[in-house]
Amino acid sequence: MPEALIWVNGQLVTAGTPALDPRDRGFLLADGLYEVVRVRRGRAVALPLHLARLAQGAALLALPLPPGLEAAVMETIAANQLEEGMVRLVVSRGVASQRGLLPAGDESPTVVIQAMSYRPPSPELYQRGVAAIVSSLRRNERSPLTQVKSLAATEQVLARMEAVRQGYPEAILLNTRGRVAGATAANLFAVVDGTVLTPPAAEGALPGILRQRLLSEVAPACGVPATSAPLPLARLIAAQEAFLTSVLIGILPLTNLAGQPIGRGQPGPVTRQLAATLADNDCHPLG
Amino acid sequence: MPEALIWVNGQLVTAGTPALDPRDRGFLLADGLYEVVRVRRGRAVALPLHLARLAQGAALLALPLPPGLEAAVMETIAANQLEEGMVRLVVSRGVASQRGLLPAGDESPTVVIQAMSYRPPSPELYQRGVAAIVSSLRRNERSPLTQVKSLAATEQVLARMEAVRQGYPEAILLNTRGRVAGATAANLFAVVDGTVLTPPAAEGALPGILRQRLLSEVAPACGVPATSAPLPLARLIAAQEAFLTSVLIGILPLTNLAGQPIGRGQPGPVTRQLAATLADNDCHPLG
Repeated sequence: MPEALIWVNGQLVTAGTPALDPRDRGFLLADGLYEVVRVRRGRAVALPLHLARLAQGAALLALPLPPGLEAAVMETIAANQLEEGMVRLVVSRGVASQRGLLPAGDESPTVVIQAMSYRPPSPELYQRGVAAIVSSLRRNERSPLTQVKSLAATEQVLARMEAVRQGYPEAILLNTRGRVAGATAANLFAVVDGTVLTPPAAEGALPGILRQRLLSEVAPACGVPATSAPLPLARLIAAQEAFLTSVLIGILPLTNLAGQPIGRGQPGPVTRQLAATLADNDCHPLG
Repeated sequence: MPEALIWVNGQLVTAGTPALDPRDRGFLLADGLYEVVRVRRGRAVALPLHLARLAQGAALLALPLPPGLEAAVMETIAANQLEEGMVRLVVSRGVASQRGLLPAGDESPTVVIQAMSYRPPSPELYQRGVAAIVSSLRRNERSPLTQVKSLAATEQVLARMEAVRQGYPEAILLNTRGRVAGATAANLFAVVDGTVLTPPAAEGALPGILRQRLLSEVAPACGVPATSAPLPLARLIAAQEAFLTSVLIGILPLTNLAGQPIGRGQPGPVTRQLAATLADNDCHPLG
């Protein structure tokens, strides 16, 4: 694979080039947004949906999105000859003429696009399912930042580190009411009495691209009732099945919570059916 | 004033130089910490206290602090011939060899130090006091990140923007229980029945350098009882006096909350006494 080329404000620079102004508010204050987009057969999957979510985040932050992001993503994929992988798109507010929390208003947004090879977890993991802890960190479901992918990911970093310290690959985050918000970088679904449940936005769940597709398209196509509803931890523990979703992992069965099996401790029939129906989800061999 | 020189990993670069790797986890994930240090007469005030707080944050993030930070700060101040102002010190985890939330473990921390001129608000503001809104955002007092200065400042940016949209310069943040946590970039104190109260860490208050000094040194020197205690919003509204503290603003009277005066709507006697006692606090002419 050739040396990676990173898009920085219209230029493609070799990975390792110091191309960012250290005064960038994205670096100083996490004042910016990002999207992670799956790349398959050289194409950015569901890019318009990612850009729409980015636009919602930009509205919240009053951050003017620069034009041409779609073309920039495609150009970065092409320049890296990336076939299978992912793109990480960052838009930060850029450098301000004045210090302080408040944007000066004269910033020019910074755009950074990385195209990276990525392989989903092994087929064995999808057959076995993943285990997670319940993090000691709580997501603040009242924060509008739970609804956008801001650069302020420190909490998720901490939760993931906490999981790994305890010997688990993933962590479930509860909200301040003790109900499930999601995983560190994925949405969470539970199958309860034949219905597929996932926490709503008001519980601190990120509006995931695949989450939405599951609710509106995949579950209906399977004839499986699916809805967003508050999910107390006790209900997750007692669920028949559970799984995680993201555009990177697809549908990944969650079969164990801190050492206790969920359901039978293996991918269940509803999870398998949904995964099989998710036609372009070749992340896993469940179907 | 000569062109600003910014310390980036041991090099002093001219402001505007692209010196940061766009893959830095500080930029991508707010995986890092910062300190803002007051500079007076060419010296970094209370630098050991700032470095101690930074070390606490580094312990939380399991981020190995590089040696020589104190010398680097002093060198940056000297190179900029800064007499009155501030230093912003950032330590991020740096570039990882693998993508994802989890640090790869092979990162080399990034150090960025800016030395900037800074003038406190006008004497008139200290005589009049500042007004603030109560932000619609809530600080998650259960998050360990409230106790450190992580790069994830997006919430504070949003709260400050919300205040300015409503015509106010500052915002008070409540925690999820509806009690006061602090302001966007300052600690908050209220004077209630002659006692000076400030929210404790468990309420989401940042362990501010000046806050600690006020509790342990300034208030006792004045013979004023001072303690940290939960501060319901109603108690702040009914307080005789209130003020904000930070190493940048010193003691700044808070005299108005969303249009309603606090106490008599002007700096009160306890606030004035504390400010006068804060010997090196020349940020304001209250004394």
